[in-house]
Amino acid sequence: MDVYEKSLRLHASLRGKYEVRSRIEIQDKEALSLAYTPGVAQPCREIAKDPEAAYRYTRKWNTVAVVSDGSAVLGLGNIGGLAGLPVMEGKSILFREFAGIDSIPIVLSGQNEDDIVRAVEMIAPSFGGINLEDICAPKCFSVERRLKEKLDIPVFHDDQHGTAIVVCAALLNALKLAEKELCNARIVICGAGSAGIAIAKLLFACGAEHVTMVDRNGIVCAGEPWLTDAQAEMARCTNREGLRGGLADAVRGADVFVGVSAPKQLSRTMVQSMAGKSVVFAMANPEPEIYPQEALEAGAFIVGTGRSDFPNQINNVLAFPGVFRGALDVRAKEISEGMKVAAARALAELAGERLSREYVIPSPFDPRVAPAVAQAVAAQAQREGLSRV
Amino acid sequence: MDVYEKSLRLHASLRGKYEVRSRIEIQDKEALSLAYTPGVAQPCREIAKDPEAAYRYTRKWNTVAVVSDGSAVLGLGNIGGLAGLPVMEGKSILFREFAGIDSIPIVLSGQNEDDIVRAVEMIAPSFGGINLEDICAPKCFSVERRLKEKLDIPVFHDDQHGTAIVVCAALLNALKLAEKELCNARIVICGAGSAGIAIAKLLFACGAEHVTMVDRNGIVCAGEPWLTDAQAEMARCTNREGLRGGLADAVRGADVFVGVSAPKQLSRTMVQSMAGKSVVFAMANPEPEIYPQEALEAGAFIVGTGRSDFPNQINNVLAFPGVFRGALDVRAKEISEGMKVAAARALAELAGERLSREYVIPSPFDPRVAPAVAQAVAAQAQREGLSRV
Repeated sequence: MDVYEKSLRLHASLRGKYEVRSRIEIQDKEALSLAYTPGVAQPCREIAKDPEAAYRYTRKWNTVAVVSDGSAVLGLGNIGGLAGLPVMEGKSILFREFAGIDSIPIVLSGQNEDDIVRAVEMIAPSFGGINLEDICAPKCFSVERRLKEKLDIPVFHDDQHGTAIVVCAALLNALKLAEKELCNARIVICGAGSAGIAIAKLLFACGAEHVTMVDRNGIVCAGEPWLTDAQAEMARCTNREGLRGGLADAVRGADVFVGVSAPKQLSRTMVQSMAGKSVVFAMANPEPEIYPQEALEAGAFIVGTGRSDFPNQINNVLAFPGVFRGALDVRAKEISEGMKVAAARALAELAGERLSREYVIPSPFDPRVAPAVAQAVAAQAQREGLSRV
Repeated sequence: MDVYEKSLRLHASLRGKYEVRSRIEIQDKEALSLAYTPGVAQPCREIAKDPEAAYRYTRKWNTVAVVSDGSAVLGLGNIGGLAGLPVMEGKSILFREFAGIDSIPIVLSGQNEDDIVRAVEMIAPSFGGINLEDICAPKCFSVERRLKEKLDIPVFHDDQHGTAIVVCAALLNALKLAEKELCNARIVICGAGSAGIAIAKLLFACGAEHVTMVDRNGIVCAGEPWLTDAQAEMARCTNREGLRGGLADAVRGADVFVGVSAPKQLSRTMVQSMAGKSVVFAMANPEPEIYPQEALEAGAFIVGTGRSDFPNQINNVLAFPGVFRGALDVRAKEISEGMKVAAARALAELAGERLSREYVIPSPFDPRVAPAVAQAVAAQAQREGLSRV
């Protein structure tokens, strides 16, 4: 029985991976009169006087909605909100299990950008944060931007920023082992969608200077007719050498390959053409851009994938629970680039203690991960004046 | 320390009355690969092929959103969604405690009718049912009607129908003790807002024929210039005698007074003017239309209130948990008038075993209540062809 069949059976036996519990027993009239009418009128009055009181008297302080329109679910594409619900329930329970957050899966019936923004804005008062999930590009950029402008709680598109944080953390450690500086490293990102663009931006925020992005059409370069708006924006800060051509042209002499694209994009020959002590993060799921064994045989110094069955699993479960835990703990207004950088550095430092070519990033089950990320994110929010406690 | 101060302290110590738990431990890579990626792709694929599969592989089957715009919260009026959150959390935990339902409080940032309808429509795929709460009239009528048309899951405005079910149940028993027939009883409903109108409609569905409604402006009567649209509709089926005037005129000779209005509306003199063996349900909260002692001294045969500190507490917690339990159990498409009547009759029968003037309705803590209501609602849904199992 493979993982898919096993998973289906698990889902059939659970009939839902989350549940809602009461934090108080209602076993008599007094409990009812305190938790519900008439007593409940008092916290209502306090919140009506001062909206901040909602953080003291309700669960808002600890809740995150996982919101998706199902337009880009895993590798399955646009299967719609309802069919994406098992993923969102999974995300919700990871929030609980890794960071003690009460998380609610919210899948949407519509996929229109304005409708998504309006729906999330409407339901936001119940929540302390919004995790956007599996929304396709370029809609994910504008939905996130508009919601960040409208809401006073953190809004975070995990497919972009969670991935970016973990890639940056792993790369900081890999370059340390390779004895290279991030600012000098030539980095190629294969896949110029939402994840690739977020990775590039966060690498710049961490100090990278030489990033080249490659799409299925070729190297992202100013003037190419096929560029999306988001890619055109990236063309202004990436590819400083003005390279044209395909992936083979981009990786020649490069120090780092970061793949968020599709299976088998990176050949042995391409790896052989890279600089010495090269780093290959091949994160296409479930089949990577190149398998670790092949990449190592072709000369790669450090290899990571998105999979749990190879060393160096670059998995965004390392980031999002701690990021939201930290943001909620200090009532951050938003999750800034600085907070993401702080998360990446904290993650990198955790692995640092026993750093090796097969261990550039901690395990998702390392219990230090979420607290360390949360602490770093919270501290950075306070430094940036984004905290409200 | 009064109930309000006690309640505030309880809310401050709980910081939220509900919590979200995982139904599965994620302690190793295998669990992660089954509950989340890559395994979770399989239930997603199944639901993409057949939306019905969502009821087998996700929590949708057991979840109810408690949705409010906070425009009519308890007796507090329009305090907005956020300030209503303590009430919605309370409602959610009552769903859990009384009927094992996973319920999520969703408070809205906007109060425009179209926005409410669109937001609920957008988030509906996550849920097996929608409980509308504390939305003001006349918006509550149109929001509920439009959502019932759009959604294939039950939509139920509890302030209307929950109250109506419990009033009907109590009245069926009270009239049995008074040895009167519902079809002959002259019933006056004081308060012609959403609850009063819903009570009148459900009484008609139960067999009542003589209902008169009284608003703060006087008796609801065709042609009055102050009638709302909803009241004008009720004027066509109520007040068959064509009475005009105020509450005193309406209750003279009446068998039943049902109050969902304001404190101290019903005087001793008015009770004295009612027919023999009169029934007085004075449900204004927290202060009733008349206190039980006064009503009994003035000659009332049976008295009920909304309060837990007097006999015959007419509380909608007797209805909504079992109603949704039954509807979810048989995947009812909607909650019909017939299902509400069935719920009322089931509730009445439960008390029937030890019926007395001080016990016309069971206690909310009677463990038989929710299962009996659920069973009756489910069976009626099946009889009406509204079930999908």
